[in-house]
Amino acid sequence: MNTIDLTGIGSDTICAVSTPQGRGGIAVIRVSGPQALDIVGQRWQGKPLADMMTHTVHLGQIVDTHGDMLDQAVLTVYRAPNSFTGEDVVELACHGSTWIQQQVIQTLIDAGCRHATAGEFTRRAFANGRMDLSQAEAVADVIDAQSRAAHHVAMNQMRGRYSDELKALRDKLLHFTALIELELDFSEEDVTFADRSEVTALARDIHTLISRLADSYRDGNAIRNGLPVAIVGQTNAGKSTLLNALLRDDRALVSDIHGTTRDTIEDTVIMGGTLFRFIDTAGIRQSNDAVEQMGIMRTWQAIDKANVVLWIVDVTSADTSMAHNILTRCEGKALIVILNKTDLDDDVAARSELNDLLPEGIPVVAISAKRESDIEALRDLIVKNSALPDVENDAVIVTNARHYQALTRARDAITRAIEGLEKGLSGDLLDQDIRECLHWLGEITGEITTDNILGEIFSHFCIGK
Amino acid sequence: MNTIDLTGIGSDTICAVSTPQGRGGIAVIRVSGPQALDIVGQRWQGKPLADMMTHTVHLGQIVDTHGDMLDQAVLTVYRAPNSFTGEDVVELACHGSTWIQQQVIQTLIDAGCRHATAGEFTRRAFANGRMDLSQAEAVADVIDAQSRAAHHVAMNQMRGRYSDELKALRDKLLHFTALIELELDFSEEDVTFADRSEVTALARDIHTLISRLADSYRDGNAIRNGLPVAIVGQTNAGKSTLLNALLRDDRALVSDIHGTTRDTIEDTVIMGGTLFRFIDTAGIRQSNDAVEQMGIMRTWQAIDKANVVLWIVDVTSADTSMAHNILTRCEGKALIVILNKTDLDDDVAARSELNDLLPEGIPVVAISAKRESDIEALRDLIVKNSALPDVENDAVIVTNARHYQALTRARDAITRAIEGLEKGLSGDLLDQDIRECLHWLGEITGEITTDNILGEIFSHFCIGK
Repeated sequence: MNTIDLTGIGSDTICAVSTPQGRGGIAVIRVSGPQALDIVGQRWQGKPLADMMTHTVHLGQIVDTHGDMLDQAVLTVYRAPNSFTGEDVVELACHGSTWIQQQVIQTLIDAGCRHATAGEFTRRAFANGRMDLSQAEAVADVIDAQSRAAHHVAMNQMRGRYSDELKALRDKLLHFTALIELELDFSEEDVTFADRSEVTALARDIHTLISRLADSYRDGNAIRNGLPVAIVGQTNAGKSTLLNALLRDDRALVSDIHGTTRDTIEDTVIMGGTLFRFIDTAGIRQSNDAVEQMGIMRTWQAIDKANVVLWIVDVTSADTSMAHNILTRCEGKALIVILNKTDLDDDVAARSELNDLLPEGIPVVAISAKRESDIEALRDLIVKNSALPDVENDAVIVTNARHYQALTRARDAITRAIEGLEKGLSGDLLDQDIRECLHWLGEITGEITTDNILGEIFSHFCIGK
Repeated sequence: MNTIDLTGIGSDTICAVSTPQGRGGIAVIRVSGPQALDIVGQRWQGKPLADMMTHTVHLGQIVDTHGDMLDQAVLTVYRAPNSFTGEDVVELACHGSTWIQQQVIQTLIDAGCRHATAGEFTRRAFANGRMDLSQAEAVADVIDAQSRAAHHVAMNQMRGRYSDELKALRDKLLHFTALIELELDFSEEDVTFADRSEVTALARDIHTLISRLADSYRDGNAIRNGLPVAIVGQTNAGKSTLLNALLRDDRALVSDIHGTTRDTIEDTVIMGGTLFRFIDTAGIRQSNDAVEQMGIMRTWQAIDKANVVLWIVDVTSADTSMAHNILTRCEGKALIVILNKTDLDDDVAARSELNDLLPEGIPVVAISAKRESDIEALRDLIVKNSALPDVENDAVIVTNARHYQALTRARDAITRAIEGLEKGLSGDLLDQDIRECLHWLGEITGEITTDNILGEIFSHFCIGK
């Protein structure tokens, strides 16, 4: 664990296509580094780059090694440090043919550029102090955001609200250290400070702040990866058919989540502007089969992780034997009861029987998953009954698993410090916990990090950003 | 048939994402029209647009109807007439999330923009006299170009070389008309000009120039749609397997061509930087079956259309009974003989038997299509033996079917004029042919066109260009 290794960062000039892959009207190729103007200048016919003011655009021609024209292009110059990366940056807006994009990149490489790695422009912005690490990570989140909430949270993080909060925390921790060190300086004289209570209050304050951030991850994770909705019910109640019906929506953005098990299938979909993550589960029934029992165990775990539970009941059998178990497990969660297979039997009797079992206020909806009837009403119910995280009040919400881990560790450290204070431990032992706490917070902002961590973070960026 | 209808063009302000579809580091949203600065100004927090000089870039924020920030963005202003469309243009480079792209477009529409139709920016550039129609069409060709040759030809056309040639032709035709009208003016006095020979020479010159352009379409079509390569041979010689082997190349850009018949399957692939279009054909053999005979007829037609013919022979049977027919049909074309199924039998005897039949200089290569062995050698042979159109000499090459059709009609008209001159027809009859010739050339450049034709042309553009 050491400070940032800047070797290689910014010493050469990099280039990449920054616009989405494929063919389009325009493609933008970004070049950044000390030689950006020189290298592009070798392949440019038009006004000399040396004569261009920063933040101006110019029409000209991009030529290849032989001086043959590759394209007419619009060139924009950003002179260091007033650019995204903090380096000299040249952007070439050319025609969006895949051939031209390839050729322009190739000719820039021939002229001395290196092809940028994933996220390398943002990594340079971080290395050059244009943003801290949490802001850099937010750039990727902004690009990935599929919903208003995810966008809002990522944008706040990118603009530095989270960094500001971490900085305030850091200042409090440094104040704590100062108080403790003051005590240490006088320890020779066998003085114990009367106001260890002040230090304790400060520690508790820090603990509260870190806890709030760490706890916001439950919401943050739901915003970023989708609000978890578990679909549970007995075998053959129609869970998978329902999942397909919910996902089969032209307006919906459907994607697979990697790393799902064979037993729980997860898919995300945007409904009412919110990203939901549906989790199909194994059928719940009494069983002695070991494999089946494992599936059922996973189902209970899925319920625990979900914000919303859809309990699907087959109206033709209306077996409510598991009702008690499900109701108990879903306490404190949004539960929606779905009476499925109305195409076979629109049995109101089963419904009234269920109604007797259900506590007041639990919404019930009758559908046919197979015929996809009343799915829209169900969608509305799901959106209405989901306690969506409130992102509009601009409180910082942690969406990043790495940050959550660091915050958890920081909270552990401050908890140890508080316990130490209660036990009357000496200042140098407390100091160690506070330094660890500072360390974990520093990992979030990138003050303390390693090349490995940086490599891991930026490898998830797209090329060209 | 009337002159351009400009109704609606340029009276409102349009917007669209101009970069390729999907997620990326940057997306560029283009706004063009008289209200471009006003409308974007309503959604912009930063320096007022009215204070921005043309061709300058500015960092600021895009906000929605409620003033909530959608994104940090870089804004570029191009003031009329110094823009692509000739109108006021504002380009917003925002983060390339699909959500942001949708939201920014939506908020611009809310503020008074209309979403641009396919090719509408280029259509406005044409309507505002920034380019003629053949140049506008070349913009789409530049974006679609997959090979160096296609790019080169499209770029030449976009830069106006083709337009210059058409303009020269038009001047000659107008000179012709002037000469004829001079004759008409004096016709009362029963004077026939001694130098109808001069007029005839001019007509022949025009005919030669139009013919050269029209004839270049054979090359142009090959450049744009792929150099046609027919794969022929007896049933079960391994034609389809060979086609798959040729196409199965990671470096290759493979695409289906729509509208192909069940009988001839066409696929394109880039080899050695050139686009080839492979045409698989029905097996050739003596047959009395009507359906099969039709397939064979199509095979002969495929050979006629091809620049290169791959004749595939099964080494295990080495039936050369069709050799004479194939050799006759392939006269004047690049023919490559392929001995297939070397995995089963590397029969040099069959080869020598064939060699006796083959005229000097026809390349023969032994492969196993099934095992994909020696396919690379075959690829090299195809590239080497293809008479690739020479695009480097900068002669204009016609690649557009619409232009080809217009040129053919223009040639018919000038041919009629020449015949008329030979028959000593009167000037007013000749004048009619020349006016028709001018009309067809005018259709290429868009001087004479209809809304239907324009609609058809620009509908093939991508949105945002």
